[in-house]
Amino acid sequence: MTSVLLTGIGELSTNDPRRAHEAGADPADPLARLHDAALVVEDGRVAWTGRAVEAPAADVAHDLGGRAVLPGFVDSHSHLVHAGDRAEEFEARMAGRPYAAGGIRTTVAATRAATDEQLLARATALVAEMLRQGTTTVEVKSGYGLTVRDEARILAVARQLTDETTFLGAHVVPTGPDGRPGDPAAYVALVTGAMLEACAPHARWVDAFCEEGAFDADQARAVLEAGARAGLRGRLHANQLTAGPGVRLACELGLVAVDHCTHLADADVDALASSGTVATLLPAVEFSTRQPFPDARRLLDAGVRVALASDCNPGSGYSSSLPFCVALAVRETGMTAAEAVHAATAGGAAALDRDDVGRLAPGARADLVVLDAPSVVHLAYRPGVPLVHAVWRGGRPVAGA
Amino acid sequence: MTSVLLTGIGELSTNDPRRAHEAGADPADPLARLHDAALVVEDGRVAWTGRAVEAPAADVAHDLGGRAVLPGFVDSHSHLVHAGDRAEEFEARMAGRPYAAGGIRTTVAATRAATDEQLLARATALVAEMLRQGTTTVEVKSGYGLTVRDEARILAVARQLTDETTFLGAHVVPTGPDGRPGDPAAYVALVTGAMLEACAPHARWVDAFCEEGAFDADQARAVLEAGARAGLRGRLHANQLTAGPGVRLACELGLVAVDHCTHLADADVDALASSGTVATLLPAVEFSTRQPFPDARRLLDAGVRVALASDCNPGSGYSSSLPFCVALAVRETGMTAAEAVHAATAGGAAALDRDDVGRLAPGARADLVVLDAPSVVHLAYRPGVPLVHAVWRGGRPVAGA
Ligand SMILES: [Zn+2]
Ligand SMILES: [Zn+2]
Repeated sequence: MTSVLLTGIGELSTNDPRRAHEAGADPADPLARLHDAALVVEDGRVAWTGRAVEAPAADVAHDLGGRAVLPGFVDSHSHLVHAGDRAEEFEARMAGRPYAAGGIRTTVAATRAATDEQLLARATALVAEMLRQGTTTVEVKSGYGLTVRDEARILAVARQLTDETTFLGAHVVPTGPDGRPGDPAAYVALVTGAMLEACAPHARWVDAFCEEGAFDADQARAVLEAGARAGLRGRLHANQLTAGPGVRLACELGLVAVDHCTHLADADVDALASSGTVATLLPAVEFSTRQPFPDARRLLDAGVRVALASDCNPGSGYSSSLPFCVALAVRETGMTAAEAVHAATAGGAAALDRDDVGRLAPGARADLVVLDAPSVVHLAYRPGVPLVHAVWRGGRPVAGA
Repeated sequence: MTSVLLTGIGELSTNDPRRAHEAGADPADPLARLHDAALVVEDGRVAWTGRAVEAPAADVAHDLGGRAVLPGFVDSHSHLVHAGDRAEEFEARMAGRPYAAGGIRTTVAATRAATDEQLLARATALVAEMLRQGTTTVEVKSGYGLTVRDEARILAVARQLTDETTFLGAHVVPTGPDGRPGDPAAYVALVTGAMLEACAPHARWVDAFCEEGAFDADQARAVLEAGARAGLRGRLHANQLTAGPGVRLACELGLVAVDHCTHLADADVDALASSGTVATLLPAVEFSTRQPFPDARRLLDAGVRVALASDCNPGSGYSSSLPFCVALAVRETGMTAAEAVHAATAGGAAALDRDDVGRLAPGARADLVVLDAPSVVHLAYRPGVPLVHAVWRGGRPVAGA
């Protein structure tokens, strides 16, 4: 077992307030950052963090030349298993032109028509693309199959890439074979019955899209409760397009996370603050749909725990980049860079109820990102620039230099 | 002399309407794109473009597996020679906090204090960072020296990196040694006298910042006319913060390009359309200063030639990424993806009065970008994602796979 010392770290974001404050970090810093720091990796885990001048000896040492190091990003919301391309629909939306052939049903048709191998190849490429951008943990949802067979095989593909798999049969009510709108009640019965039974073995989470045009609060509740009976923990898509009942439902049910949170009434913010449910913001969706952005400042000031995720999907936002989401969150949602990076690391981990990732503390997994920059602030200060110098996962370099 | 055939090009953006239309490209496409295309490189230049099935033989062949190929980006506006970091000032601006230590004078002080070697190292790293993002031609300005000695050494550094160097002594009136505001008239006399004499040998262009708080139209005219007498061609920073006189001055003087163009009166748009002066938009600055974006649609609909550039600088916008600028231009300025990519390639070349770059036509320099995507549309559809697979300059791979 070889121990590795990373030293010459200009700025080390630990998300580990207790230990970092002992070492002199600003108690008000969400990232609990150390400067002129070092970190020891042993057996795939962080063994030590602190000031470089106090670092213990190790078998191997790497000097990072003043670069910033942060925990690997934890992307708690993605739809990576899919087929097809909706670039033309995106172009039409940006130009304000109608586009009849678009919508989620396009992706559903392409996904159903794809083989498992094709689905796995695309998703594998997207996971690799995310890794190069610093994402070391990713949640992946189903939701483009909408049949028992297709939802189950999507989740089986997803499970090959991550443990954080989510059954989202309740993404939208599929059209019938005649192309006419399907029957919502019958579909919810399928989702909570045979589809759940086929999917639960491949999933950790259950999710629903609670929005006008998708599923109402009663239907979402039925899906989440059935999922819970099958051993799945709940999360929810809610309040993306309207201030509907989804966020309050998520808080009432004590879900770990509720995602989008773009349109919130005061009662929604209160419910989030008192429930501890994580509000996951997905600003790349607002960017790619040209919608108003969520207000992270309002949530943070109310004491709500906030996560930042990509929602990477071919329809409403196909960015896999958490650095881009950080830059957007600073420009558009009122977060500081430190808050945004915290939300994309520790926040994402909280949204997946994980404490082994999202922080660089003794005992945590040695998943980390080395930036070609002196500070995480550069992720916002230098938008669009690929600043990731290297990525380590489980204590080993997996991307970059 | 080895000829190289690049084939399996899913989408080839040529910016070469005549030849592409013969090969079946859509005459309305700004990029004159071919599909299932090939390109032959010989002696550092493009020797042939067309349909893959009609490609001539070559010594070596590379199959690009359906990837998109486009001309290398031409970034016609940057401030790469500088020292110091203004990340803290950026953070304060985003948070709406005052920040007394900020402003261009911070960069001027740091730049004057840096050695030539330090300036060259930073600028070299930024050029390399740009290259990895597909920028194969870049213009670099002075403007952080504001003394005869410092402006001249900045340009000497810039000239080591590019032929497209611009003397911007008239960036701002420097404060005197006592810290009080300098005398504008005396400074313009210096810029048009001894400073111009020292800088002209290192520069191709002369530029001024025509804006309230910087230089008025008469002062800008004096700088441009003196530059012209010294053999420098003119370009101008104008209409960034207000609809001032700069754009009309640029058009009256027949300058090749006028940059920013964020606030325009109808008379400015008319002047641009009838003069042929290129309007260079710098939307990453509006992103990083949280200002309203320019209206590219209005300019394009009026028949104005538009370029897209980074303005990479440590103060108002430190992105070096033309892919990011393309994504922003589509989200925020009303351009289609094809128009934005055209503006960042052929548009940038027009803004530098170059016809050897910015297009992939027989005889042009073989500067090209291979994307990990089937179309340039993905640069907007997948914001923030580093999609550059490889970059060739002068017929040789210089970055990426
Ligand atoms: Zn989603
Ligand atoms: Zn500029």
